[in-house]
Amino acid sequence: MGEPQPSNFALAETEVADPADGELIVRNTFMSVDPYMRGRMSDAKSYAAPYEIDHAMHGGAVGEVVASAAEGFAEGDTVLHQLGWREYATVPAKDARKVDATRVSSSAYLGVLGMPGLTAYVGLLDIAALKDGDIVFVSGAAGAVGSVAGQIAKLKGHTVIGSAGSPAKVAYLKDELGFDAAFDYHDGPVHKLLRAAAPDGIDVYFDNVGGDHLEAALGSSRLFGRTAVCGSISTYNATELPPGPRNFGNVVVSKRLTVRGFLVLDSFDRFPAFAQEVGAWVASGELKFRETVVEGGIEAAPQAFIDMLNGANTGKMVVRLG
Amino acid sequence: MGEPQPSNFALAETEVADPADGELIVRNTFMSVDPYMRGRMSDAKSYAAPYEIDHAMHGGAVGEVVASAAEGFAEGDTVLHQLGWREYATVPAKDARKVDATRVSSSAYLGVLGMPGLTAYVGLLDIAALKDGDIVFVSGAAGAVGSVAGQIAKLKGHTVIGSAGSPAKVAYLKDELGFDAAFDYHDGPVHKLLRAAAPDGIDVYFDNVGGDHLEAALGSSRLFGRTAVCGSISTYNATELPPGPRNFGNVVVSKRLTVRGFLVLDSFDRFPAFAQEVGAWVASGELKFRETVVEGGIEAAPQAFIDMLNGANTGKMVVRLG
Repeated sequence: MGEPQPSNFALAETEVADPADGELIVRNTFMSVDPYMRGRMSDAKSYAAPYEIDHAMHGGAVGEVVASAAEGFAEGDTVLHQLGWREYATVPAKDARKVDATRVSSSAYLGVLGMPGLTAYVGLLDIAALKDGDIVFVSGAAGAVGSVAGQIAKLKGHTVIGSAGSPAKVAYLKDELGFDAAFDYHDGPVHKLLRAAAPDGIDVYFDNVGGDHLEAALGSSRLFGRTAVCGSISTYNATELPPGPRNFGNVVVSKRLTVRGFLVLDSFDRFPAFAQEVGAWVASGELKFRETVVEGGIEAAPQAFIDMLNGANTGKMVVRLG
Repeated sequence: MGEPQPSNFALAETEVADPADGELIVRNTFMSVDPYMRGRMSDAKSYAAPYEIDHAMHGGAVGEVVASAAEGFAEGDTVLHQLGWREYATVPAKDARKVDATRVSSSAYLGVLGMPGLTAYVGLLDIAALKDGDIVFVSGAAGAVGSVAGQIAKLKGHTVIGSAGSPAKVAYLKDELGFDAAFDYHDGPVHKLLRAAAPDGIDVYFDNVGGDHLEAALGSSRLFGRTAVCGSISTYNATELPPGPRNFGNVVVSKRLTVRGFLVLDSFDRFPAFAQEVGAWVASGELKFRETVVEGGIEAAPQAFIDMLNGANTGKMVVRLG
């Protein structure tokens, strides 16, 4: 628990052998740093096994095939895999997916066109069951998931309110992404900021933050409101469990609210629909995305991860290699 | 806020006029005291209008028609209405429902065959979406709603765990109602008591209590667990909002839990199915019910209500009149 420190990480060199039958050697070009990784840096029982000490941080990465012993993959192919933080990865071909990096940067498959994008799509459409007329509030709205969730809601015709952690991010939400309202959560109690930004209340809350944001969103919810709990980044570094929403019992019943946690790994069957719909919006430029690209190679990854947990990113943060 | 006091109540005498066209005069035989009434004794915005000072406490009552100016109702009919705490009520016929008091006490229509029973039915089957194999935990399980919810789950073949507030209630759950396990929540931290009573975890939590019970139930929930929040009686007399479940953010996501508040008033369309299924179980004796009948007439109602909020009842509490 507590904030990760650079001293919690170590860089190790190992030999990269030739690929065995069915394997690829991939030179990574971008590695992902994601909030969920913080959860795996703990022994607490969870959906994903804890990271093992002295093993690489698993997670998304894209790279170029430099040697292939697997049918269907050739040198020069760009692939997505989950072997995480390393410069070269020996990837079983069944765990690699070829991606088209001719029209977007390959890093987009770690963000808007990848797991964070699918998370936004599933959370908003399936878990929160977005329907006509809903007013939508997204926290962490300038992040990798939130920025996609908010824009999907806008593209489907909804009023969308976002929260973020800096004036620049708030401006990004309003001026570039077309949010109807946005606030910097440092500017006062979240429940007051939300009440001012959404005077008519909200129907859907896409929660990336937890804590005060969740309490405020329940308080601003209208009858039959739905909250999709994607993450609680405000609590990931907490050293003791923070209290839950103080208004919980009363508002959940009196307003008949539904609060539902979800993980994208249950919804990979939605990938084709997501890739078609969101892919088209990205191709047309209707859905915008920014990336926070950290330079400096693999050595820069620990600090990038720590900074991301503190909100240094706008859009998806990736670390560029090589 | 705080515990209601007898001094918050006053008895008033008024004239009962002859019924106008379309009205009935009903001599009440039983009046209902329900937890939700506590919420209406507050100005806080809620689904039901606050009680007005110097007006009667509205709520369920059954009685005998002593004068009718409405087609379809005759002297001697037993009717259910919602005009609450009074000895005689002038009831528009459209707001009265004739009930069959030949096979059960008319008071049953305030409990197992009425609103509390329907609440249990809807909460368990529709809101928590009970399905085969679910392990079910019910808090306030010896109460009007909980005792029906737990028994419905048992009759549908589930493993059922209950919590209640006294050794006698725990014995009632285990020995008379056939619960698989039950505990007295005074015997230790609820999360430990629940873990011991449900070592394999739970899938469905029917929440009548809130507070520590909700936190414990989320902690014991298995993947894709569902909580139906019916009430939070542990908080109704609280003078400040208690913290919500401390484990909220983490467990809701990692276990993909759904927490859903509900009110029976949205589900009156389920009454026919409820009356048929639960009515048959009551008629056959498969579903048992107790009532806590308070004697002493209308003067006894305030203290009965206060005692009910403190857990004095087993099953439905009603006040007998006349």
